[in-house]
Amino acid sequence: MNLQRLLADLAIETDSRIVFVVADGLGGLPKEAGGETELEAAATPHLDELARHGTTGLVHPVSPGIPCGSGPGHLALFGYDPVTHAVGRGVLSALGTGFDLQSGDVAARGNFCTVDQHGKVIDRRAGRIADTEGERLVEKLSQIQFDGVEAIVRHVKQYRFTVIFRADGLGASVNDSDPRRTSVKPHPLEAADEAARRTVAAANQFIDRAREILQEEQSANMILLRGFGSLPDIPSMHQAYRLDACALAVYPMYRGLARLLDMRVPERANGLSEQVEQLKAAFQQHTFFFLHHKSSDSRGEDGDFEKKVEALEELDRIIPTIAELNPDVLVVTGDHSTPSVLKRHSWHPVPVALSAPTCRPDRTTCFGEREAITGGLGQFAAKHLMPIALGHAGKIDKFGA
Amino acid sequence: MNLQRLLADLAIETDSRIVFVVADGLGGLPKEAGGETELEAAATPHLDELARHGTTGLVHPVSPGIPCGSGPGHLALFGYDPVTHAVGRGVLSALGTGFDLQSGDVAARGNFCTVDQHGKVIDRRAGRIADTEGERLVEKLSQIQFDGVEAIVRHVKQYRFTVIFRADGLGASVNDSDPRRTSVKPHPLEAADEAARRTVAAANQFIDRAREILQEEQSANMILLRGFGSLPDIPSMHQAYRLDACALAVYPMYRGLARLLDMRVPERANGLSEQVEQLKAAFQQHTFFFLHHKSSDSRGEDGDFEKKVEALEELDRIIPTIAELNPDVLVVTGDHSTPSVLKRHSWHPVPVALSAPTCRPDRTTCFGEREAITGGLGQFAAKHLMPIALGHAGKIDKFGA
Repeated sequence: MNLQRLLADLAIETDSRIVFVVADGLGGLPKEAGGETELEAAATPHLDELARHGTTGLVHPVSPGIPCGSGPGHLALFGYDPVTHAVGRGVLSALGTGFDLQSGDVAARGNFCTVDQHGKVIDRRAGRIADTEGERLVEKLSQIQFDGVEAIVRHVKQYRFTVIFRADGLGASVNDSDPRRTSVKPHPLEAADEAARRTVAAANQFIDRAREILQEEQSANMILLRGFGSLPDIPSMHQAYRLDACALAVYPMYRGLARLLDMRVPERANGLSEQVEQLKAAFQQHTFFFLHHKSSDSRGEDGDFEKKVEALEELDRIIPTIAELNPDVLVVTGDHSTPSVLKRHSWHPVPVALSAPTCRPDRTTCFGEREAITGGLGQFAAKHLMPIALGHAGKIDKFGA
Repeated sequence: MNLQRLLADLAIETDSRIVFVVADGLGGLPKEAGGETELEAAATPHLDELARHGTTGLVHPVSPGIPCGSGPGHLALFGYDPVTHAVGRGVLSALGTGFDLQSGDVAARGNFCTVDQHGKVIDRRAGRIADTEGERLVEKLSQIQFDGVEAIVRHVKQYRFTVIFRADGLGASVNDSDPRRTSVKPHPLEAADEAARRTVAAANQFIDRAREILQEEQSANMILLRGFGSLPDIPSMHQAYRLDACALAVYPMYRGLARLLDMRVPERANGLSEQVEQLKAAFQQHTFFFLHHKSSDSRGEDGDFEKKVEALEELDRIIPTIAELNPDVLVVTGDHSTPSVLKRHSWHPVPVALSAPTCRPDRTTCFGEREAITGGLGQFAAKHLMPIALGHAGKIDKFGA
């Protein structure tokens, strides 16, 4: 069954409003066996009330057992099969800078790195150089020019940048030069087809020139490229569900992903309360809202259990203001789990709470991983969450007579 | 994996007997937040006992979030993927009138409607005219004749009718003339291929003649056609599972659907107790029985919570008689949910109870939506229910060594 086509056929444009609050890396683990997870430990009275009046469950972003990145995690939440609609890291990175990626462009994510005198990588992140330093170096790389292909460089954050190759007939089937470990040289770029060969030729010229330009630098004396990709052919939220969508996100990658799906993306807010103000201001103009909370993931990746708890408590405090807007369907979930004890994205299913007048009662008493196991939504693939929200919002026509 | 082919390969013909009792529109919602659903409120001691001794769960007829019609809902219960085996509305409508649809016939569902002097639709249901009025108008349409294609018209209910086009080489890939909204003209019919062009030519003649015939009518002065379709190529219950099936159903659509799957369909019974008598009489002659209870859906669509409760209590009273027949597997479920507070089919998953000596114990204490959340069957796609029943009946061979 092609779920995407079925939904596009059955979707109805209505005035009802859906809000998705996405706490990045929401799912967690206890510090000690049998203890409470970050979400369970957090004091979240408003989320608990939401869960109690609504229904809960657990979603698997990609497929059970598979750790998930934020890109596919969000695509799944937006109802797109994240494997069918794989979006390259380079594309997400380019979109994240606000760059207006064109069809046919090939984007790659870049890292400044440190190599020794033999060209072996000794630090894949060039000592995590500061933003100002990264900006200065990107300025230098922007001077690179060569015949036939335009190379556009954009700074992302710290040691990270994006490079976009623009010319006719470029292909994106190129491996990573980033070896993902140290004490080895960067991988040579290899092309899977003729179009990709043109990209490799351009990227190799870019890398050679970058090496020359950076050779006098202390730490950032080389670059690594990975995640070559082009804009995917993905239906917009309106094509897919007849939704007029709006994204309240601070971080570039999520703003870029939202733009890719034709969501409106207001100017960057300064933190959660401003995001909520933006949501209020835009509430009459759209039928779907995606509000992204980043720090739950960041604190999880830092391995800081208590700070992740605080990040979730911060999220809890904005829930009443959102609930007051009286959306027809309010969903709180995450794009993947980031247990602070693991300091990284994991494969654990992600708790979801859904509140709507049409929720069937279950026995959920609070919002947490244990409780969600026996929630009314059960465990399911994250890509089904959007249809469930659309169903509760009365936005799906009956299938068959 | 092609589940259908796998099952056909592994199915074993045995004497064991499976009974599916299908309460149409079974799943519900409480009248007030946190209250009891219709099924939970109903006094159903026999269904509760069945659930307690057996196991329970929740099924999604099509896919989570998608409201489901009775046609696809039943196909899913019979183990057929309802999207792969989509049966057009026209076909279900024709089967529903008891019409003996032939391979090659193209059937469409028709509405009498009201158009203004410019031909724009102002009421898609012609003021929901009464059955007698609908019958009178269908009588008029039945006089329409033209060369090369036979047009057969059958009244369905109120403003609804079915028209069957019969000739060699007709195709069903024709769009709806029904614009699904008012203040616009009906859509012109368009054909997707050469065979469909012949159908469009015939249908346009039919529509033109209908317009002339109906022009003096007060409200029903035009027709809309939709859901053009032909008999699908669908394996019979015997081809699919080596089952010799029998359907005890009162309503024409369900009888038609059963015939489509080569079930034996005894003459129409007058209500539940007669259906049970038919089941008893036929019990030695078949290995699968489908007993259909309609009123739970009808009362749900009426928005009558109490009457739906009564309809479920009525069903409960026949359970002991069925259990006394000692079927190897007894399943009670629904084809979709019809919460009376919504007055329509919904997307909510449907409770199922399955009783067999081989049931693994769970903690189910009664038959209801809340209880089914934590039942031993879990939540799953409805198309898997038939294989589970076949498994308990010992009718599926081991896959692999």
